[in-house]
Amino acid sequence: MNTFEAIHQRRSIKQYDPGHGMTKEEITTLLEHAILSPTSFNIQNWRFVVVQDPEIRKQLKEAAWNQIQVTDASIVIVLCANLKAHHNPIRYWKDAPEEVRNMLAPMITGFYEGNEQLQRDEAMRSCGIAAQTIMLAAKEMGYDSCPMIGFDPEKFARILDLPDDFVITMMITVGKAIQQAHGRGGQLPLEEVVVYDKF
Amino acid sequence: MNTFEAIHQRRSIKQYDPGHGMTKEEITTLLEHAILSPTSFNIQNWRFVVVQDPEIRKQLKEAAWNQIQVTDASIVIVLCANLKAHHNPIRYWKDAPEEVRNMLAPMITGFYEGNEQLQRDEAMRSCGIAAQTIMLAAKEMGYDSCPMIGFDPEKFARILDLPDDFVITMMITVGKAIQQAHGRGGQLPLEEVVVYDKF
Repeated sequence: MNTFEAIHQRRSIKQYDPGHGMTKEEITTLLEHAILSPTSFNIQNWRFVVVQDPEIRKQLKEAAWNQIQVTDASIVIVLCANLKAHHNPIRYWKDAPEEVRNMLAPMITGFYEGNEQLQRDEAMRSCGIAAQTIMLAAKEMGYDSCPMIGFDPEKFARILDLPDDFVITMMITVGKAIQQAHGRGGQLPLEEVVVYDKF
Repeated sequence: MNTFEAIHQRRSIKQYDPGHGMTKEEITTLLEHAILSPTSFNIQNWRFVVVQDPEIRKQLKEAAWNQIQVTDASIVIVLCANLKAHHNPIRYWKDAPEEVRNMLAPMITGFYEGNEQLQRDEAMRSCGIAAQTIMLAAKEMGYDSCPMIGFDPEKFARILDLPDDFVITMMITVGKAIQQAHGRGGQLPLEEVVVYDKF
């Protein structure tokens, strides 16, 4: 499937075959592509919680307005981010020449340190980028997906034992669709969302 | 190019052929794919400012630490979001059955109204998702890209006449690479960024 087809065919799917599981290899393939997503300064602040355990899935579903895709999909990926990923940044450039590494590391820490809004923005931005990688890669693998924010993030944090300084940004269900999406709800025309040169 | 190849081959490119322009049709194709990106509740809060004008590009470059890709790339897309996109939400579901539309519209307004952090999170999240659509679609079209946050957003807002209640989330340069990217700087191992079931 080419990239254009994947972009067109990716739709938010709510009904999945509850009997279908993904293999460990498939999950690894999906996530190996997710981590090729770009992050600012290569900060790789995302963390991906792959939930398969039925009891945890049941708890997540209850904290997500009982939406059935949370238990019926093959996997749920809760996208989280480390808000303090700018600490210890040298490892994000360990394979770069020493002078590059030594220039970038203090720049990364200085850019984010003390700016909590920026740290949170980066969490949402990085996870958004990775989310689309996951959804398009899933499509390439013959799977469907649904990005979701309709859940109680505090309950999710308790269920998943989220560490301090981490934030949950969204979740994605991935599985085998048993019912296709309805038509798109109401696309805004390109002229409304695209501006040339300035507003 | 299949989606996996696009994900692998997308790298952040800094050196572009300054003599290469994209046609209006190519830009439209790229953005027609961008707007197929999902947004929460189909809120379509992103706005894409496509900057080609050389004088504006020069000003943006000065406000972006003089990074050369801002003037050398074929186009610059400044991704912005309407923080008040939850106002007047009925149009996002104009093609859905009336009962669906009437259920969703007040839900959308209620979900975001008065919660400025959530409005900003949604700006970053939606633009992140659309950003990866743009970068992968560009790759499919034979172009390279670079996602950027290294700029002064206040100066950008003045240069672009950004309306009130809008926020700039990032920018992407798109063009013909004349120098390939270096090797990846230092990928974290999958085991560090993937968690199974809970932390």
